[in-house]
Amino acid sequence: MEIATRVWNHRWKIDPIVRSLIDTDFYKLLMCQSVYHNRRDTQVTFSLINRSSNVPLAKLIDEGELREQLDHIRSLSLTRGESTWLRGNTFYGKRQMFRPDFMEWFENLRLPPYFLERVGDQYELTFEGSWPEVMLWEIPALAVLMELRGRAVLNHMGKFELQVLYARAATKLWEKIERLRGQPGLKIADFGTRRRHSFLWQDWCVQAMVEGLGDGFTGTSNCLIAKNRDLEAIGTNAHELPMVYAALAEDDEALARAPYDVLADWHREHEGNLRMILPDTYGTEGFLRNAPDWLAGWTGIRIDSGDPETGAEIAIRWWQERGEDPREKLVIFSDGLDEEKILELYHKFAGRVRVSFGWGTLLTNDFRGLTPDDRLAPFSLVCKAISANGRPTVKLSDNPNKAMGPAEEIARYKRVFEVGEQERHEVVV
Amino acid sequence: MEIATRVWNHRWKIDPIVRSLIDTDFYKLLMCQSVYHNRRDTQVTFSLINRSSNVPLAKLIDEGELREQLDHIRSLSLTRGESTWLRGNTFYGKRQMFRPDFMEWFENLRLPPYFLERVGDQYELTFEGSWPEVMLWEIPALAVLMELRGRAVLNHMGKFELQVLYARAATKLWEKIERLRGQPGLKIADFGTRRRHSFLWQDWCVQAMVEGLGDGFTGTSNCLIAKNRDLEAIGTNAHELPMVYAALAEDDEALARAPYDVLADWHREHEGNLRMILPDTYGTEGFLRNAPDWLAGWTGIRIDSGDPETGAEIAIRWWQERGEDPREKLVIFSDGLDEEKILELYHKFAGRVRVSFGWGTLLTNDFRGLTPDDRLAPFSLVCKAISANGRPTVKLSDNPNKAMGPAEEIARYKRVFEVGEQERHEVVV
Repeated sequence: MEIATRVWNHRWKIDPIVRSLIDTDFYKLLMCQSVYHNRRDTQVTFSLINRSSNVPLAKLIDEGELREQLDHIRSLSLTRGESTWLRGNTFYGKRQMFRPDFMEWFENLRLPPYFLERVGDQYELTFEGSWPEVMLWEIPALAVLMELRGRAVLNHMGKFELQVLYARAATKLWEKIERLRGQPGLKIADFGTRRRHSFLWQDWCVQAMVEGLGDGFTGTSNCLIAKNRDLEAIGTNAHELPMVYAALAEDDEALARAPYDVLADWHREHEGNLRMILPDTYGTEGFLRNAPDWLAGWTGIRIDSGDPETGAEIAIRWWQERGEDPREKLVIFSDGLDEEKILELYHKFAGRVRVSFGWGTLLTNDFRGLTPDDRLAPFSLVCKAISANGRPTVKLSDNPNKAMGPAEEIARYKRVFEVGEQERHEVVV
Repeated sequence: MEIATRVWNHRWKIDPIVRSLIDTDFYKLLMCQSVYHNRRDTQVTFSLINRSSNVPLAKLIDEGELREQLDHIRSLSLTRGESTWLRGNTFYGKRQMFRPDFMEWFENLRLPPYFLERVGDQYELTFEGSWPEVMLWEIPALAVLMELRGRAVLNHMGKFELQVLYARAATKLWEKIERLRGQPGLKIADFGTRRRHSFLWQDWCVQAMVEGLGDGFTGTSNCLIAKNRDLEAIGTNAHELPMVYAALAEDDEALARAPYDVLADWHREHEGNLRMILPDTYGTEGFLRNAPDWLAGWTGIRIDSGDPETGAEIAIRWWQERGEDPREKLVIFSDGLDEEKILELYHKFAGRVRVSFGWGTLLTNDFRGLTPDDRLAPFSLVCKAISANGRPTVKLSDNPNKAMGPAEEIARYKRVFEVGEQERHEVVV
């Protein structure tokens, strides 16, 4: 009985962290399809950026092990069951969300090569190639680095010390869930794939949310977990769309229009809950001020940087100005949430708008305070498009600490998008 | 693979709590051998006594389930591996602790019938028959009632709620272990079989102690766990020996001598670490005052009721008066310990005597504060010899709250053993 399992397990040369191409965020696949249809020939470079320079990834993680994990991801292809699930499932009430031509392309996909180099105590990890292929590296690359860093710490712990570590982490999450439950209409989804402690831990967290929150848990952004646990896959779109569209703009006028071009493409493809505006890429205020009227008819706005209350108030005012009833609009908060912030925002906005939360890192990786020196605390790692067809990308967001791109381009974007003084917020995770 | 396991598990009509005759305290087997050789024909009655009347066992536990568990215990016999372990193992450095005639008897033993009746919200559970047979019911009967009461609470909990419950309990124990470790020479054994939360939980606690305390963990009183985990089995003797010997005494003079007769029999059979005095059955002060000189040569004293510091000081003074060096003597504390009390006693007595701890209920069943209404908190359940050859037994101990027996007999014993005023201590577990 157990013998066969053990023999099987011993065959693995490594313990693979990412074992499926759909162990990724749902919005990646939605965006990938959109990119595949609209901009498939765009050449992009994605790069890993560790915003927490105090975490010396190259000292913690063996380069050989990292390469093994990344090579393993390159060996993955969509399984028949995964393909069936994507083709046959109903997402946000809609059948055949993924069209046959995209699915055929996806079924034949292997992820493109990666480029890895140690520079000081950090790794430079980049991916180059056609946009729809390269973009699918983002989530698995982040998950691999996060989990390898965790393993480097866990390797030195005893069996029962490990059990107690997970016992403490489980208790910590459960206490958050206990504080969150019983709030009528509170809706929360798991957005924690990219910076999760590990796959198994994310899977545990999701199941705990199912039992603890019941209907208050709307689903997970992780497609593999959604499939395995029969849950809703959650997500819409992200900054990479306006960032790449903007980089491709030929002049300032085209640049100013780029974020709306993204959503015009999106508008043609999607409706209902998928029509979510992510307005902060180049400053929320300017984006909404200059937005075409049809955008006010969209379902809602996701608030992913800056002060979330301010962001929500700006959105509410904008809807009112455009003659929309904010009470029918959806606001999704998704930036650096923990249960206290969730409850605070819920109490402030429930009733004024429809409120929902995309809970990420502090759902699936709150190991803060559980080890000496806090060596398992999550840190701020991202993997972003840094160039498109040879031109640098820029992100501003509503928090200058999250801005990225060459300084002169940042200045240009600030001018074009009429971004004034911005408030700085510490980036925790 | 898993199919066969599940089919196998479905065959069980019940989930048996006690699955082995050596899932019991080591001292029970040592005493059983002594009784088998010295008093095998004594007819005794053992009875369950729930000192926590606020725990309505008969309301919580289904009588049918209780009978099934007790019936299952009656179906058990010593397995070949268990017999081999008892025959072949070295206990306290001595080979063949259990002699062939005793082992042959034990191999053929089935536990005698039980008598169960519901009276109000409690169960009357008694066992009658020859002493060496009946005495082996004590530990499994207690373990069954404790675990059935736990199951009655756990049955209403969700899967993740359960996981978090155990996560919290594990964390709680680990934090105790963290406070206990790093104290040079601190020695602790598991004495928690009888009032454990469950067998699996005790097994977990023991393994956590092994990893967390290292050499500071000396072993477990549970023979099955000692065998499975390759640990020392720990224990010597208990109150039932003087209680039954005393009940059998024909007159006051014989009564006064009974506790020493017990130890004279023990002296012939054992040496070294097994020569431990349990002086409190009829009051520690009187026992030591009237003790024969050869007892002062024994290895140590176990302190199991009353104020432990007072008990240890009395022992130290007694050794000094008898010309013994207390620093060479062993004091084992075993009454109602938790990690704070252990540390307090350790700091007070380390260096003055050799100190050791038998940690029971709050090691293997500290579920206090982990459920609403504290429905999993341990409670004070005992199973005692209440009569021998038709005469009632009496226990006084150093705490009047632990005294048992008919009032007139208690008065007689107090007179014979010259027990004066006693300090009352709350019995927690």
